[in-house]
Amino acid sequence: MKKAVILFSGGLDSTTCLALAKAEGFLCYALSFDYSQRHASEIHAARLIAKKMGAKEHRVVKLDIGQFGASALTDQQIAVPTYTESTDIPVTYVPGRNTVFLAVALSFAESISAYDIFIGANAVDYSQYPDCRPAFINAFEALAAVGTKAATLGHSFKIHAPLLHLTKAEIIQKGMALGVDYGLTVSCYQLDETGAACGHCDSCTFRKKGFKEALIQDPTRYQSTKA
Amino acid sequence: MKKAVILFSGGLDSTTCLALAKAEGFLCYALSFDYSQRHASEIHAARLIAKKMGAKEHRVVKLDIGQFGASALTDQQIAVPTYTESTDIPVTYVPGRNTVFLAVALSFAESISAYDIFIGANAVDYSQYPDCRPAFINAFEALAAVGTKAATLGHSFKIHAPLLHLTKAEIIQKGMALGVDYGLTVSCYQLDETGAACGHCDSCTFRKKGFKEALIQDPTRYQSTKA
Repeated sequence: MKKAVILFSGGLDSTTCLALAKAEGFLCYALSFDYSQRHASEIHAARLIAKKMGAKEHRVVKLDIGQFGASALTDQQIAVPTYTESTDIPVTYVPGRNTVFLAVALSFAESISAYDIFIGANAVDYSQYPDCRPAFINAFEALAAVGTKAATLGHSFKIHAPLLHLTKAEIIQKGMALGVDYGLTVSCYQLDETGAACGHCDSCTFRKKGFKEALIQDPTRYQSTKA
Repeated sequence: MKKAVILFSGGLDSTTCLALAKAEGFLCYALSFDYSQRHASEIHAARLIAKKMGAKEHRVVKLDIGQFGASALTDQQIAVPTYTESTDIPVTYVPGRNTVFLAVALSFAESISAYDIFIGANAVDYSQYPDCRPAFINAFEALAAVGTKAATLGHSFKIHAPLLHLTKAEIIQKGMALGVDYGLTVSCYQLDETGAACGHCDSCTFRKKGFKEALIQDPTRYQSTKA
């Protein structure tokens, strides 16, 4: 079986990515980050899902890019805003985040002789994030082609971004067809300590809209439901 | 003053890089990594040098890529070899290391609105390391041009690799002209607990040869001198 490294947060997108990689026959090595993000209960969810979905390994890398601040996801001084339609890059943007995540994934992949890396980047809902665009994915693949020992030995790294052009509803439909239990996944930028979602940040908004458009009952546990 | 982020290990090359960036008039933000490398006394030296050379800030990011193993620098099971001439990539190669370092530097730079990043990569002595080549530096600059919020706002990140084509002797001569105290810098892959160098790993070998060719007395404290 060919190995693949899956950037895996335990959220809706990356869990779908893991299911897709598994369906394509890859032996899956899930990789999560503890980067002082506000939603640390993500990591707990990620551990549970990776195990349940039969990942061969699940690594959690501590990575203190949160110390740089400058994002509502990592800086307690910046409030996570309620969703509003806008063409600006949101304050939840973490400087260079996907560049760092893919770089560490590349390091992990090379160390286990895996040449396939999956990332759940999405250019539809997250079109304002510069590191969720096709040009970014292509530029990273070009970098991996010159910056690794494996490449000098003739291996090509492929960055798979299978969700890049899908709507949230399409992502959910794909995942459901593969048996993903979305009730386990967490997307919210400001989960409470019980893991319940706020229901009104960007991430919750896209997720809610996705289930609605996919005509699938939303299994998310929201804070307002007091469930 | 324009800000620059300097990838800074406290070694001979990155210390020269810091001196060059300072001489070019940049306000210098030094960035070091604690990645379970064997030579952890590097970090102690880095702190001292950054302070002495007037860096505006010195950040140390913990980054557990050492857990991936696959390198003599991070895996205690792999011995650091004595230098031998070879065209192979050495076992001290850390998978994707400079990709990860530059990615984190990019994240730091973007968070402080710095658009200049210095890396002491060298394609002469380290010609076998894939991530020390001009093509790699260019590919990373291309990635930064599409993967950041700053780039979408019209800023260009420049990756400065001023040592890329210099011999070790030329690097030392440049640094001496700028007043670098190389007695403080550490290069050895297997420093002892007192910070003394082994004198026979690749890094020590290149360094010794550099001082000899530059006709400058080697200020390195070696283990064998019992100094």
